[in-house]
Amino acid sequence: MRNVYVAGVGSTTFGKHIATPIESLAVQAAATALIEAGIERKEIGALYLGNFISGPLNGKEVLAGIVGSRLGLGNIPCTKVEGACASGGIAFRHAWMAIASGMCDAAIVVGVEKMTHSSTAEVTSALNCAMDNENDGPSGLTFPGLFGLAWRIHAQQYGTTREDVAAVVIKNKANGLLNPLAQMGAELTLEKIMGSAMIADPLQMFDCCPASDGAAAIVLCSERLLTNGQPKIKILASAQTSGSPRIANHPDLCSFEATVTAAHKAYELSGLQPKDIDLVELHDCFSIAEIIDSEDLGLVPRGLGGKWAAEGRTNKGGDVVINASGGLLAKGHPVGATGIGQIYEVVQQLRGNHPNQVANARIGMTHNLGGTGVACTVNILGRE
Amino acid sequence: MRNVYVAGVGSTTFGKHIATPIESLAVQAAATALIEAGIERKEIGALYLGNFISGPLNGKEVLAGIVGSRLGLGNIPCTKVEGACASGGIAFRHAWMAIASGMCDAAIVVGVEKMTHSSTAEVTSALNCAMDNENDGPSGLTFPGLFGLAWRIHAQQYGTTREDVAAVVIKNKANGLLNPLAQMGAELTLEKIMGSAMIADPLQMFDCCPASDGAAAIVLCSERLLTNGQPKIKILASAQTSGSPRIANHPDLCSFEATVTAAHKAYELSGLQPKDIDLVELHDCFSIAEIIDSEDLGLVPRGLGGKWAAEGRTNKGGDVVINASGGLLAKGHPVGATGIGQIYEVVQQLRGNHPNQVANARIGMTHNLGGTGVACTVNILGRE
Repeated sequence: MRNVYVAGVGSTTFGKHIATPIESLAVQAAATALIEAGIERKEIGALYLGNFISGPLNGKEVLAGIVGSRLGLGNIPCTKVEGACASGGIAFRHAWMAIASGMCDAAIVVGVEKMTHSSTAEVTSALNCAMDNENDGPSGLTFPGLFGLAWRIHAQQYGTTREDVAAVVIKNKANGLLNPLAQMGAELTLEKIMGSAMIADPLQMFDCCPASDGAAAIVLCSERLLTNGQPKIKILASAQTSGSPRIANHPDLCSFEATVTAAHKAYELSGLQPKDIDLVELHDCFSIAEIIDSEDLGLVPRGLGGKWAAEGRTNKGGDVVINASGGLLAKGHPVGATGIGQIYEVVQQLRGNHPNQVANARIGMTHNLGGTGVACTVNILGRE
Repeated sequence: MRNVYVAGVGSTTFGKHIATPIESLAVQAAATALIEAGIERKEIGALYLGNFISGPLNGKEVLAGIVGSRLGLGNIPCTKVEGACASGGIAFRHAWMAIASGMCDAAIVVGVEKMTHSSTAEVTSALNCAMDNENDGPSGLTFPGLFGLAWRIHAQQYGTTREDVAAVVIKNKANGLLNPLAQMGAELTLEKIMGSAMIADPLQMFDCCPASDGAAAIVLCSERLLTNGQPKIKILASAQTSGSPRIANHPDLCSFEATVTAAHKAYELSGLQPKDIDLVELHDCFSIAEIIDSEDLGLVPRGLGGKWAAEGRTNKGGDVVINASGGLLAKGHPVGATGIGQIYEVVQQLRGNHPNQVANARIGMTHNLGGTGVACTVNILGRE
C-alpha cells in the first residue's frame, strides 16, 4: 500500500442552509478543497460522496455523479457510499483505498447532508432508517431512547452521574463557541442543562446533537502530487468495521463492538497506541456517546469516561483532547458530512491552524459511528 | 492488480416479493452465492451492497451492515454504494477492487431492490431521485419521457422504425420466457405491442421494463480460494464512469457518454475488441435503450441498432447475442440488483449452464447505466 496524504480540505459551516440545494453544499466544500490542493482536475481519479438520507429528505440520489459533474471532473468514477451516520468516514476510507492501492494518484471525498428544512417527525423517521427495523422496530425505540438506556446502564455499572455527563456537554458546547464552523456553541452550566427539556430520560435537550445542514471535503493524493505548501499530513490508518444492527444482540449497551474492533485495527495498522493520540474527534451524537466512545477507543479506562470529563482530563491540556471542535453536540451533525468534517478538524489541528488549537498536536484520530453500532470507521492522521 | 475470479453466484427470482423484507431478499441471494463458493465465511473480507431507493420506498438504510450481520460475516467492512440504476454494477466493481488491490482474498457483492409494494406514483417519484432535479426537474421529464425523446431523434437521424424497436421487445420477451428467474417473459407480436397503452409517445407499455423486487449476489475471490469445481470465470475488465446528469448537456440524446467511455475503458483494460464479445447483458430499461446501448458499446454500427434487432443479428446465432436473459424488459429491473443480476446471467452462460444457452460462449459483457447517463459500469468476464 502506498502512502496517502491530505492535499486540501474544505467545509461549509454546519447549521441551517435551508435555501441551498444539497448538491450546492457539497460543491462548495469540494471546490474549496480542490483549490487548496492545487492539483489539476485531470489528476483526480475518483470521487466518493458520503450521504445518508438525501433520498427520504431531499428526493435526490446519484449525488456523487451530480457533484462530480458540477466540479468538472469529467468521466471519472463517482460513487456514493452509505453507512448511516458513518457514511462520511466510509467514503473517506474508499478515497484513501483508491490511492493506497495505486488505482489513482488523487481522489476527492465529500460528505453532505441537508436536514433542517424537514419537520422533526420527518427527520426522526428518516434517522430511524438506520435501525434494524424488522427486529427492533416493534420496540418503538428511537436513537435518543437507545442512548438513554445506555446512560442508565453506564450509571448503574460505573457510577456515572448527571454531573459527569453534563461535563461533556459543557466542554463541547464551550469548544463550539471557538469554532466558526459550529452550529451551536454555548456557555452552559449544569443548571441550564438540567433545566432543558427531557427527551428520553435521562437524556435532556442539551445532551443531544442538533439536526444540521452542511458539507465537508478532503482531497487526498500520493506523495508525487503533494505540492500545497502545507505541513505534510499522512493517513496513518483507516479502518472500517461492522457490528450487529440488532440491539438485543449487543452483549453490553455501554460498548459498541464496531468501535472496539475498528480502533484495534487502526492501532494495529499504524503501530500506535492510545497514549500516542494527541486529540480525537469522536462521535458524540449524544453526551453519553462521547463517554462510551472514549472508552471503546481505549483512550480512557473503561467506566471512567464520565469521571475523566468531569476532571477536565479530556479537554485541552488534559490526557487526551476530545472534540476540540465542539463535536457533534456543538458543531452539529449533518449526518453524511460528519465523518469528513471530523477529518477537516483534525487536519487543521495538525497543521497548527485550528481556532481552538491543541498545543503540539502531531497525531489525531477520528471516530465515526453508524446506527446502533452497525458501521464504524476510525482514522489516524499524523503530521510528518 | 491481481486476477479475480467468480467463486459463486446466487439470485432470487425477479418479480413480486411483497411479503418479503428487502434485507431477506438480499440474504437469500447472498447465502446461495456463499454456499456455491464453498469459501469459509472468515475468508470473506468485504461486503458491498448495491441499492438505489430502499430509503424512500422501504424506510430502510444501512442495508449493507444489516445483511452482513444476518450472513454471519463478523466485523468486516460492509458498504452500500449507490449510483441510481448502476448501483449494482458499481458495487460489483468495488468488490473486484477489494480483491484486485490485495485488500482481501474474497468478497461478496449483493444487489437488491424492493419496489412492487409501492404505488406507481411512489415508484415514479422515487425513480426520479436519479434525475438532476435542480436543473431538469422544472421540465417535468420522467425517464419514459427522456427515452421517448431519444427514440424520436433516433428515428429522425437513422430511420429507425416502430418495427425495428418492436423487434427488441419481441426478442427480449421471448428470451424471458426461457428464463425461470424472469418476471414477465411473453410471446409478443408487433400487433400486441402496438395495441398496448401509450406511456410517453412513442414508448408504449411493452417498451418499458417493469418495477420489480429481487436480489442477486456474487462471491469473488483470488486464485488461491477458487475451489468451487466450476469452470474458471475471470473478471477481464471492470470499468466505471460518469456522465453529465443534465439532459441539456448531452450533445446527442441517442448516445450516452458514460457508456461510450466505460466501454472504451473496458476494451482497453481487457485488450479485447467488440468482435470478441460473444454475449452481452445490457441496460434495456426501455426498448430504445437497448438500441442506443448496443451502438454505444461498439457492438453494432452507429444507427443500426434497430435494424440489427429486426434482422435477428442480436439474437442467438446472430453477430452478438444481446440480453439472452430477457433483459430488464422481461427479466425485470429491481434497480439495485440489476447490475449484479446481469453478471449472474453472464456467469451461467460462460459456465454453459444457462437455460437459454448461447453456444460456445467464452467472453461475456455486462452494461449497467444509471439515471440520465450519470453513472455507468461495463464489465467483461471470460472463461479461461
